[in-house]
Amino acid sequence: MNGDHRAGLDRFSINQMTVRQLSLPDLAAVCGRLGVTGVGLWREPVRSYGVRAAADLMRDAGLTVTSLCRGGFFTAGDQAGRTRALEDNRRAVDEAAALGTDTLVLVSGGLPAGSRDLIGAREQVADSLAVLAPHAAERGVRLAIEPLHPMYAADRCVISTMHQALELAGRFPPSSVGVVVDTYHIWWDETAPDAVARAGAQGRIHSFQLADWTVPLPAGVLTGRGQLGEGSIELRRWRERVDQAGYRGPMEVELFNEELWAREGAEVLAESLSRFVAHVL
Amino acid sequence: MNGDHRAGLDRFSINQMTVRQLSLPDLAAVCGRLGVTGVGLWREPVRSYGVRAAADLMRDAGLTVTSLCRGGFFTAGDQAGRTRALEDNRRAVDEAAALGTDTLVLVSGGLPAGSRDLIGAREQVADSLAVLAPHAAERGVRLAIEPLHPMYAADRCVISTMHQALELAGRFPPSSVGVVVDTYHIWWDETAPDAVARAGAQGRIHSFQLADWTVPLPAGVLTGRGQLGEGSIELRRWRERVDQAGYRGPMEVELFNEELWAREGAEVLAESLSRFVAHVL
Repeated sequence: MNGDHRAGLDRFSINQMTVRQLSLPDLAAVCGRLGVTGVGLWREPVRSYGVRAAADLMRDAGLTVTSLCRGGFFTAGDQAGRTRALEDNRRAVDEAAALGTDTLVLVSGGLPAGSRDLIGAREQVADSLAVLAPHAAERGVRLAIEPLHPMYAADRCVISTMHQALELAGRFPPSSVGVVVDTYHIWWDETAPDAVARAGAQGRIHSFQLADWTVPLPAGVLTGRGQLGEGSIELRRWRERVDQAGYRGPMEVELFNEELWAREGAEVLAESLSRFVAHVL
Repeated sequence: MNGDHRAGLDRFSINQMTVRQLSLPDLAAVCGRLGVTGVGLWREPVRSYGVRAAADLMRDAGLTVTSLCRGGFFTAGDQAGRTRALEDNRRAVDEAAALGTDTLVLVSGGLPAGSRDLIGAREQVADSLAVLAPHAAERGVRLAIEPLHPMYAADRCVISTMHQALELAGRFPPSSVGVVVDTYHIWWDETAPDAVARAGAQGRIHSFQLADWTVPLPAGVLTGRGQLGEGSIELRRWRERVDQAGYRGPMEVELFNEELWAREGAEVLAESLSRFVAHVL
């Protein structure tokens, strides 16, 4: 999508997780009614529906799959676990290719059980990427490393900053491995704007995702991502930074939020679009 | 305390919040039984007991007050709020002096209500420090800026990294303004070891606090600090880093943890001491 010079509203993409209460056909139908042309999909619901059937559904609805979430979780306490993770990631690449998306989002994984070795875990991620990247390149799929907020460093993602993600991506060609810029994870980091600029200059911004930061955080801190405009993040400023870095691809709204999930999916999707116009464009 | 070349166990200090179920006299008595010689106190319980009475109690028990927690919360949406915060911080300095501790821990405060301006909030903190530092120096109290984990950036502390805290402290003499190294807040940050080394070289490590990182985080993410050894942090490695940076002061165990608060305070204090021996020394 990077080569595509659309501007504004037509770059909006809805990540499926934001409206996980919608089935894939309902998601496609609501997108059609609202004029939304991009969706970010998740592996589990896609596999439940059938990868081929999902690909057909999206194509027939005129929808572009802007990313597949997600591969990764490379870290493990033993070689067998790491091998299983790599096999699963090869399948994720194949699913992305089958869906016609050029971008597979990767969340690296946390510390292996009982380990305190952050540096070692990061090296595991690098080693796994070295194996996976050629397979992804063959399939025409770009790997997009997503740094997660440091509050996930122990249990979900040992890559905590844009700088770390970019250093890791830098071991590979930009056409093969890049980064995800997600406002929720990086907004607090004063070094992130420079890292975003560098990522753009290198052609490594492979995905731009948006969520707002709201408090208090819920237990487990997974499902507290705020609707755009509800929280503390200068969303428009981050969109401008990504623009200035040369990014011209989709802008994907990805919210994990129990309150949004309890509401009518079509209404949440319409609200996300209107908030995007008000707070991001 | 920095000039004090004690080694090992006698550098252990218990932060009062770890065993907040203990009254000040009970805290002093349990410390006496265990041979613990250092305590970190909090303003609210000290003020409830009476600052002068607390100072007498600690001195009579042979206890060193290793820090007073906490001043700060400088940020506010209007000048009146900022002025009130500064007045409260002057009182905190005076309380620290009355307790005979050389260190006042500062948590900067989060974004003012409705604001998204992180950079502006950080400048507010710098401006308030410039007013407060001379008063503290007069009273013989060092201000110790504590970076909090980025998950607190919105609502508690816009200073999120050791590097930021050190940059801010660097505007003032080291004898007046330094930093707190707290494992809970910085363990995930690959740039923190260098910042700790620089802080030590500048004589700016004014406090070293320990807690472990455990998951899942509780709602609100305030009361999930793990007992030493229960979590993901290489505590001994961080103690070695602080040692190598030249720090010779107290090592304060500060846990906010509902499960620990529900137990017998004396037992939790003894456990903290034994975990300190096993996982830190």
